Amino acid sequence: MRLDLCRCLKTSIMSSIVVALGGNALASSDDPSGYTAAHQIAQITRTSEVLADVIADGHSLVIIHGNGPQVGNLLVKNDLARDVVPAVPLYWCVAQTQATIGIELTSALKRHLAARGITVPVVPTLTRVRVDAGDIAFSHPTKPIGLIIDSDNPPDIPLPATHAWRSAGPASWRRVVPSPQPLEIVDTDAISMIIEAGGIAIACGGGGIPVVMHDDKLIGADAVIDKDKTAVMLAAFVRASRLVILTDVDGVAIDFGTERQRFLGTVTVSELEHYLKAGQFGSGSMDAKVCAAIDFVRLTGEPATIGNLADVRKVIEGHAGTCVVADET
Amino acid sequence: MRLDLCRCLKTSIMSSIVVALGGNALASSDDPSGYTAAHQIAQITRTSEVLADVIADGHSLVIIHGNGPQVGNLLVKNDLARDVVPAVPLYWCVAQTQATIGIELTSALKRHLAARGITVPVVPTLTRVRVDAGDIAFSHPTKPIGLIIDSDNPPDIPLPATHAWRSAGPASWRRVVPSPQPLEIVDTDAISMIIEAGGIAIACGGGGIPVVMHDDKLIGADAVIDKDKTAVMLAAFVRASRLVILTDVDGVAIDFGTERQRFLGTVTVSELEHYLKAGQFGSGSMDAKVCAAIDFVRLTGEPATIGNLADVRKVIEGHAGTCVVADET
Repeated sequence: MRLDLCRCLKTSIMSSIVVALGGNALASSDDPSGYTAAHQIAQITRTSEVLADVIADGHSLVIIHGNGPQVGNLLVKNDLARDVVPAVPLYWCVAQTQATIGIELTSALKRHLAARGITVPVVPTLTRVRVDAGDIAFSHPTKPIGLIIDSDNPPDIPLPATHAWRSAGPASWRRVVPSPQPLEIVDTDAISMIIEAGGIAIACGGGGIPVVMHDDKLIGADAVIDKDKTAVMLAAFVRASRLVILTDVDGVAIDFGTERQRFLGTVTVSELEHYLKAGQFGSGSMDAKVCAAIDFVRLTGEPATIGNLADVRKVIEGHAGTCVVADET
Repeated sequence: MRLDLCRCLKTSIMSSIVVALGGNALASSDDPSGYTAAHQIAQITRTSEVLADVIADGHSLVIIHGNGPQVGNLLVKNDLARDVVPAVPLYWCVAQTQATIGIELTSALKRHLAARGITVPVVPTLTRVRVDAGDIAFSHPTKPIGLIIDSDNPPDIPLPATHAWRSAGPASWRRVVPSPQPLEIVDTDAISMIIEAGGIAIACGGGGIPVVMHDDKLIGADAVIDKDKTAVMLAAFVRASRLVILTDVDGVAIDFGTERQRFLGTVTVSELEHYLKAGQFGSGSMDAKVCAAIDFVRLTGEPATIGNLADVRKVIEGHAGTCVVADET
């Protein structure tokens, strides 16, 4: 199976690889600091160093990243300051995280590339992604975001119409927001320009700034978009030879947490779909990654890999992680 | 004098014009809402409509904008939420305003251009600008920012080492921050790509995200940069045929507020420098605009215009505003 993987990698060298960075690439999930800028910058610097190695190997990357804790912190600031300065819409918070994460990734990546004698442009883009105003997510928000608040009753903090407070355990509450399906990357101009110039684009951060069409106008939506779903659209748009979803585990495991736990090496899209339908991946973060990998392979016929950020070179070379490939025809 | 101006405009048609948008282009200075997103979007929409007319006339624009009230609001949120979520550095706040203003300008401008049958790319960029870590502004911060706080003593809010509380009247205080000289636009890659692709770049928002060189690394600085100063660098970088500084007055006046008040039409750089040295423009906002216009004309020999946003077409065509031109040789 590994041989198959190596073969498909060789034929795709020099075309773009879309790399999706999970939360661990941007900050430790157990960060006791509450995600200070210094902590985020340190983690982003480490991430950029391994990505610079990949670029030095000759790969052309397009980078998408998550933003969960970062956008959550901005919502908390909105809430705490709202009597003094106006709260801003959630899509502004998403845009703000594209800016801060984008500029820190750019800064660190350019520095690590320069240290390797590489001077390609690295350009962070602000990217809007269109969703459907009629998406069921707007009437049934499910994505938890921001701090858990201790209170017997739902917190007395005004929310946009599409947000809600949901119980997060006894006497504790957390905001849930809509996470609609991405339909279209709006701001593709910049992404195309960067790739055509041989540069590295950082795009669709946090899944993209959600917008809906309203009276022939695109307007911002009080929502967030799943980064792995948007990664599929981004990878299809740039005709990526591979989608690489990086996380903090070594790949996709079946019978996870049992004695029979086994990491998958190379797996066909049908096999993986079978495991998915059998409920192997729960409804957590791995579930979303597996769905994205399946969607990308089904859409393009190209492989998708899920692996550990720390092993990114091995993951891309096919020596680590789970590689999802098209069914043999 | 108007004839001279018309002549220099004709020779520059089709090369880029750098347009610097002041605060009034992004929000009313007397906004009672405290700069809500809705208010900012409405004002940006109006601004984009007049800029779309200019682009429809055949001009190629590069846009830079201010961010004073917006970055001030973000600092206030930092202060009010700091016991719950970590405050972020000032340069992150600047980056955040580049994102929100940039995406709203892009959205509105693309829509108004589409209504005119124009489909050029409009791309907001995140732009770092290098300043000198030894700039005197870091030890002597002077730029007031954020809300005025009523208190007998300086507020008990921790500040970065380079910030200070300054009296803003009896029992009231306001934060002052460093506003160092811009030395170099760091992220020129994106700006070049956009212009080469025939697109409209939005760049160096808020004067740019300030960074300093430290141990061969560019790191963020707790500062802001004057937007008009950076506009000069941006206009020189793109070899602009004209720098257009838009504000809410009709141009540069001498003997301002007196019976002899007179708006300047076309003025040579030496004449204007004479008025500047004579203290005609105080030390407020017009002073900075006049200095920027003088610097641009001295640096490039091309004209700079200061005029009213509402009259932007006339200002660019040379029928309104104050046009600063090189001395006749």
